[in-house]
Amino acid sequence: MKVLVLNSGSSSLKFKIFSQKDLHVLSHGLIEEIGTGHGSYHLVDPSGQLIEGKANIPDHKAALDLMSALLKKHTGLDQLDHLYGIGHRVVHGGESFKKAVLIDEDVLETIKKLIPLAPLHNPANLLGIKIALEHAPNVPQVAVFDTAFHQGMPPHSYLYAIPKDIYEQHGIRRYGFHGTSYSYVTRQAARFLNKDYSSLSCICLHLGNGASCMALKDGECVDTSMGLTPLEGLVMGTRCGDIDPAIIFFLNRTLGMDIDDIDHLLNKKSGLLGLCGESDMRSIAKRFSAGDPDARIAIDLFCYRIKKYIGSYMAVIGRPDCLIFTAGIGENSTLVRQKVCEGLEHMGIRLDKELNEQPKSDKAPAYSISASDSDVHILVVPTDEELEIARQTIKVIGAN
Amino acid sequence: MKVLVLNSGSSSLKFKIFSQKDLHVLSHGLIEEIGTGHGSYHLVDPSGQLIEGKANIPDHKAALDLMSALLKKHTGLDQLDHLYGIGHRVVHGGESFKKAVLIDEDVLETIKKLIPLAPLHNPANLLGIKIALEHAPNVPQVAVFDTAFHQGMPPHSYLYAIPKDIYEQHGIRRYGFHGTSYSYVTRQAARFLNKDYSSLSCICLHLGNGASCMALKDGECVDTSMGLTPLEGLVMGTRCGDIDPAIIFFLNRTLGMDIDDIDHLLNKKSGLLGLCGESDMRSIAKRFSAGDPDARIAIDLFCYRIKKYIGSYMAVIGRPDCLIFTAGIGENSTLVRQKVCEGLEHMGIRLDKELNEQPKSDKAPAYSISASDSDVHILVVPTDEELEIARQTIKVIGAN
Repeated sequence: MKVLVLNSGSSSLKFKIFSQKDLHVLSHGLIEEIGTGHGSYHLVDPSGQLIEGKANIPDHKAALDLMSALLKKHTGLDQLDHLYGIGHRVVHGGESFKKAVLIDEDVLETIKKLIPLAPLHNPANLLGIKIALEHAPNVPQVAVFDTAFHQGMPPHSYLYAIPKDIYEQHGIRRYGFHGTSYSYVTRQAARFLNKDYSSLSCICLHLGNGASCMALKDGECVDTSMGLTPLEGLVMGTRCGDIDPAIIFFLNRTLGMDIDDIDHLLNKKSGLLGLCGESDMRSIAKRFSAGDPDARIAIDLFCYRIKKYIGSYMAVIGRPDCLIFTAGIGENSTLVRQKVCEGLEHMGIRLDKELNEQPKSDKAPAYSISASDSDVHILVVPTDEELEIARQTIKVIGAN
Repeated sequence: MKVLVLNSGSSSLKFKIFSQKDLHVLSHGLIEEIGTGHGSYHLVDPSGQLIEGKANIPDHKAALDLMSALLKKHTGLDQLDHLYGIGHRVVHGGESFKKAVLIDEDVLETIKKLIPLAPLHNPANLLGIKIALEHAPNVPQVAVFDTAFHQGMPPHSYLYAIPKDIYEQHGIRRYGFHGTSYSYVTRQAARFLNKDYSSLSCICLHLGNGASCMALKDGECVDTSMGLTPLEGLVMGTRCGDIDPAIIFFLNRTLGMDIDDIDHLLNKKSGLLGLCGESDMRSIAKRFSAGDPDARIAIDLFCYRIKKYIGSYMAVIGRPDCLIFTAGIGENSTLVRQKVCEGLEHMGIRLDKELNEQPKSDKAPAYSISASDSDVHILVVPTDEELEIARQTIKVIGAN
């Protein structure tokens, strides 16, 4: 039987279909520009062939119909109701969800209640679930939350120093994101190091267009850099990461910007883009190598902040078993990995420059780039959030 | 001759008078509630006697007249014009002032231009300078900036990941504060360790009602926790320190708070006060010892954040010569010092619990509380910002 993983965004629907038995990917695709009048889709079929086209896709229901038709035609899945299960990515699970859950009315209601915490994501995730439930009412469906992995953090990690009642009444606290990715890569790392997950300590850097880091001690997440929202923490493609919150007051009072302008500025126009005019690390790294000063400061700042987080997490968890690089930049940027590790030798982190520069193998589930005398293993672990969602979906359905 | 140090606040005037020769304190005092209709003053005279009273103090000019009369009566300084020099505390020197300077028209103009960066402090500081200039036109006067110490930080430390032009046009960057205190205590530490200042590396924790930390490498400040304003960084008495900046968007949109309300909340109602209802560490520490859960979380969070900064600065500067505790909490709270150092043994920081708990000697310029096998010296160094302002004032006048 087959497992479908769905990631429903505000104007897109991403899907991937796995065989339940061995988690082999059968097909995956993306439907974009839903409701905009210029919809498009693509799908990679089981033979690896790309099918793409344009279509009128007025809403998410039409998108799911289209996906269903595409899967029928190209993968032989005659109807969604024959699936073993459907796993949905849900961004915000608040304090309600500490792990993936089978979806029922209560779960839907709770995800809805959490909309104020993720106003851009949870509504689209919820819509995707509702339409999938209508489409395949007999298939067990599972919600996998980006925040669940971090729910074991202690209060001194997740609380902000704001009035206690604001946390209690409105849930303003650190939640953390990229949890599905962290769950996947830390398990891969434990396997690679031949260690029990429950004794693994590591610092994990998820460096993509969104970037965050996470400290794991004895198999439990103890801290992470993203907070109430994905704006806090590391420098990202277009997000500022950590700033003096009073900058917002300054932008409002001195520059006359309103809250929506400032939100847009800090989430969409800042980060690498704000520092050097673009957010693609491959291109920035080329400019860096050619001596471009803006690219240099963008990469310096990006790596410096990561280095500080590594130090802060080492103060918290002690010397970790490994430091993990994952996601687009983490898996591919030899420059970033080198600059992050530079100067951390006194903390037991010693990179092997040659290993770091070897071409990435897409097949390797994890590989080491640390020097033989490094106290901390430095690993590159390609992430796979859809595979993790599929795994957790199967596990939840199996246990119910 | 004598040197006067002035700290002019919006409704207060703090003063201290030193002998120029040996920097011995002759007298100090405070005039409060200027312009409120219920003014008061106190002064400690050269014999140590406290003089206090109430007076009508309509404005800062009246406050300076009162101070001048008090100094004449109780210290024999017949007029301010006989002073060797006057040193003024100025909060924000922006990027214009990298050290203390002799005050002239240009300096006044620049401090005025910097008001947007410190709207609460620079106007009052400027007013104090102007009135002192009128009062003692023949005395050299020096501005000593809280931000100057940090001006050598590299761009990757002081830049935020926001659009480059916003920094360039409006000066939105990390400045850092408590610079006068850091200048003083790091020099005391170098003397105590018998080390050249230019080779000193240390992490310095200024823990008062306002709290910050700073990393010094080879005698240069390379990073600090306060930013554009004193709101960023560590948890403080009433300030939140580091938070997800998007919390401000949430408070505005979901709770309907306006910018001024949020500013007040994060600056005046947060920090230790927000977490446990009060901001006085002595009282909170008592409640902690008695098992009060709110006091526990307040202290846990306060110390946890400090610990993370220590780790992050060690990633930046390598193993420091010393870790310095200073200011009210740093000099007096054995509990905070113990909890901060706990778990940092693997980084070479080992506290001697007995030394930590010995009663503080007010006479010692610095003392060690580290275990004999600690790789990093842990020092308690009482700060003295007025003395440092007096020193810098004498130095600047001597060089001009």
